Amino acid sequence: MTSYERLTKVMNTVVDLGAAASVLGWDQETFMPDGAVEARAEQLATLSGLQHHHMVNDEAQAAVEAVRVDLASLPERKRRVAEMFIRDHERDLKLPESFVLDMARTASLAQDAWKRAKAKSDFTVFQPLLEKIVDLKRQESSILGGGEHPYDAMLDTYEPGLTTAQLTPVFDRLQKGTKEILDQITPAQSAVDDLVLYRSYPKDRQLSVAKTIISHLGFSGTTGRVDLSEHPFCTHFAHTDVRLTTRIRETDLRSCLFGLIHEAGHGMYEQGVSAELARTPSAQGASMGIHESQSLFWENVVARSEEFWSWAFPILRDAFPDQLKDQSVQSFYRAINKMQPSLNRVESDELTYNLHIILRFELERDLMAGTISVAEIPEIWNQKMHDLLGVMPSNDAEGCLQDVHWSFGGIGYFPSYALGKLYAAMEWNVMQQEIPDVRDRIANGDFTPVLSWLRLKIHDYGRTETPNEIIQRIAGRPLTETDFLSYVSTKAHHVYGL
Amino acid sequence: MTSYERLTKVMNTVVDLGAAASVLGWDQETFMPDGAVEARAEQLATLSGLQHHHMVNDEAQAAVEAVRVDLASLPERKRRVAEMFIRDHERDLKLPESFVLDMARTASLAQDAWKRAKAKSDFTVFQPLLEKIVDLKRQESSILGGGEHPYDAMLDTYEPGLTTAQLTPVFDRLQKGTKEILDQITPAQSAVDDLVLYRSYPKDRQLSVAKTIISHLGFSGTTGRVDLSEHPFCTHFAHTDVRLTTRIRETDLRSCLFGLIHEAGHGMYEQGVSAELARTPSAQGASMGIHESQSLFWENVVARSEEFWSWAFPILRDAFPDQLKDQSVQSFYRAINKMQPSLNRVESDELTYNLHIILRFELERDLMAGTISVAEIPEIWNQKMHDLLGVMPSNDAEGCLQDVHWSFGGIGYFPSYALGKLYAAMEWNVMQQEIPDVRDRIANGDFTPVLSWLRLKIHDYGRTETPNEIIQRIAGRPLTETDFLSYVSTKAHHVYGL
Repeated sequence: MTSYERLTKVMNTVVDLGAAASVLGWDQETFMPDGAVEARAEQLATLSGLQHHHMVNDEAQAAVEAVRVDLASLPERKRRVAEMFIRDHERDLKLPESFVLDMARTASLAQDAWKRAKAKSDFTVFQPLLEKIVDLKRQESSILGGGEHPYDAMLDTYEPGLTTAQLTPVFDRLQKGTKEILDQITPAQSAVDDLVLYRSYPKDRQLSVAKTIISHLGFSGTTGRVDLSEHPFCTHFAHTDVRLTTRIRETDLRSCLFGLIHEAGHGMYEQGVSAELARTPSAQGASMGIHESQSLFWENVVARSEEFWSWAFPILRDAFPDQLKDQSVQSFYRAINKMQPSLNRVESDELTYNLHIILRFELERDLMAGTISVAEIPEIWNQKMHDLLGVMPSNDAEGCLQDVHWSFGGIGYFPSYALGKLYAAMEWNVMQQEIPDVRDRIANGDFTPVLSWLRLKIHDYGRTETPNEIIQRIAGRPLTETDFLSYVSTKAHHVYGL
Repeated sequence: MTSYERLTKVMNTVVDLGAAASVLGWDQETFMPDGAVEARAEQLATLSGLQHHHMVNDEAQAAVEAVRVDLASLPERKRRVAEMFIRDHERDLKLPESFVLDMARTASLAQDAWKRAKAKSDFTVFQPLLEKIVDLKRQESSILGGGEHPYDAMLDTYEPGLTTAQLTPVFDRLQKGTKEILDQITPAQSAVDDLVLYRSYPKDRQLSVAKTIISHLGFSGTTGRVDLSEHPFCTHFAHTDVRLTTRIRETDLRSCLFGLIHEAGHGMYEQGVSAELARTPSAQGASMGIHESQSLFWENVVARSEEFWSWAFPILRDAFPDQLKDQSVQSFYRAINKMQPSLNRVESDELTYNLHIILRFELERDLMAGTISVAEIPEIWNQKMHDLLGVMPSNDAEGCLQDVHWSFGGIGYFPSYALGKLYAAMEWNVMQQEIPDVRDRIANGDFTPVLSWLRLKIHDYGRTETPNEIIQRIAGRPLTETDFLSYVSTKAHHVYGL
């Protein structure tokens, strides 16, 4: 047995345990009966503890030491896979098993508490568990160390290498640029009417159309499926087993349709990861930021383009002839691109979306630094909503309880969405150069070139490169907000006829 | 930490891993995309291997040795739980991890092959994997040893303590008694018309009525749910998380209705296991035979009684007014109790059902003894169907491919169904003595006394007693076929007006 084969056995066990935990997590969000919450928390804690154990036990350490010696002689991909495992291994070595168990158990209970809190619109129902989560995350940051800011370890979890100090000026320029565009379109706000989106659309037909569209985009039903859940998500148990969820609102056409296209963007990424990476820590997307660049590429760059709707609008109108009889491709395109400050991140537009992220980034950063407390979240949330977006939630459900992320311990996750937008705009610029007729292909409903390009440049690599390596390889430049600001400014001017 | 607490940690890990594997198994049968078969097989093999490892590793052995010393001083239930773990531990100590991994992987692939074979009605698609399974089971029997017959180890898996030598005379008398009753009713066969069962019943309403009925019986929707699958089953991940599946046939009213009541019988057993047994090897039914006594109690003793339908028939007629307008409680009661040899075990009646079991018992016993080969199954199956039941399958799908059991390696499982019938009849005799008005209560749709009696006498104990201890405690006698033959003879005479 070679040292790589020895490492492979360790990796397979760790990845299979992670996949099993993901199945249990998916089930918890989709089908699990309410009474099972506590038993499921114990099961997930056991799996998480075992996964941690197999990541760091004597055999893992011996396999890592053995493969280190052979790293230079391994083929490129295998070397990368081994390096990714070693990175995870070294990180987990620092985290005590008791800590990992506590985090898993808390996250499972917190997800239930968040659901109940949101249903009652009462932050205090969620507060004790969120306090526990923040406390655990501050411990985690302290254990992992290595950054200048306590938030750095959180960022590094989702976007390896990114620091609070690097992100802050990018977000500052992004906020400034966003506000400038917003100021330009505000006087023209009445030019775009999006009331068509809030007519009554039967739920079963919404789901059916959304499934039809993601199938056309390239999401495979042989290696994936779609279910319903409170908060939409994508999870995968293998590149051959990718699960999407969506939610449907009868009087909001965007929720199911764009939500499912978004999740399908994640899903196609996972379905596209090379089979040779299966059951290794590289059998997944490179980072949350790159992942979001895929979901947002499909949701926004593709499915909020005028070209896309010149193909898709007839399909939608066939499903909803009465509701859409007064609409044209152009009026519908403008409706789905109305840019206006609102309360809800998921339902916000391409322009103001990043302000929602900046709000969460600042909150998380300050929670991690200990300069604000969990109890203050509702008040600070509302204040920031007012300052950044000029709107004010009327209750916690539409305010600080709107997202699932904190309940599963995902502090540091939110910036990924904004990074995804920035990466997606950079990818789109390169794609247009390399596939000159890509807009025409989209207008013809031919998404093969788009998906093939993403497969070739991003998906196939899985997690064998860092986000910075990927974007440098594709665009020849590091992360920048300029491509996105240029893209969204052009779109804003087009939509508002400025 | 006491020795029992130390053992508890080991037991919790083993049981949680088993629960995770069960979630993955349930998902595979209900929702998993086709493309995921191989990845799922690997995941299940990993979980199964880990479960085996934690069952027998140094810590498990040390915990078992420590608790052995304290067994006599433990409270009764804890002593029983520890003894059950020690039994499983000693069994697993004999089975090499490589064997367990191979079995899990083979079973997962075989389930897929069986589905494809059944769809094509082609036994040869399934044959190579069944050959592998039989080969592995013969190895298992040889490794476990201890019995006079190679089949004994298979029986012991599902019905601890039962041997081929004990079972053979019981089944011989059962076969003889069954044939005598069958001979009596055959001339009166035309007296019972069951065509009403094969009218057209919309699937959604079938499912809705079946769910309503099991909810009335006592199956909790807070700690359980119902989905669809190719072959109906019940699985549990905790006493608070019990999953049933059913299948619906538009022109066969029995499939969904009685199938779901059967599975709900299993499910109520699992939901009724004492919470204090959670996450131990006793947090489940005592044996497959006792389990089937619960499912068959509800399906047959309760839901095929005239009293039951005097309550349930109006509910069913409300759902299907046109289909049932020419029916009375009595005519419907006779229809669902028509006793006539047929091809399909699941859809056969209370009387001839056991002949299907005896066929499978003889096949399994001879496969294990090596006196017949897997390749011969279709031919021998058909011959035995002719000899025992006087009918002949026209293809493998309605013949030897009808059951899922062999595909998951469940050789030795089938006899449990017949044992369940025998136990259920014994339980029913005692219940009628202890609850004199039980038939009236059923006729009023009040199932509380029935469920409470089963909870108290059986469910609460979980797997802390052997099947023989349970039936001795309840009935004061060991397993016998006499109660069942008396019960079914009375019913046959009533239904056929003899």
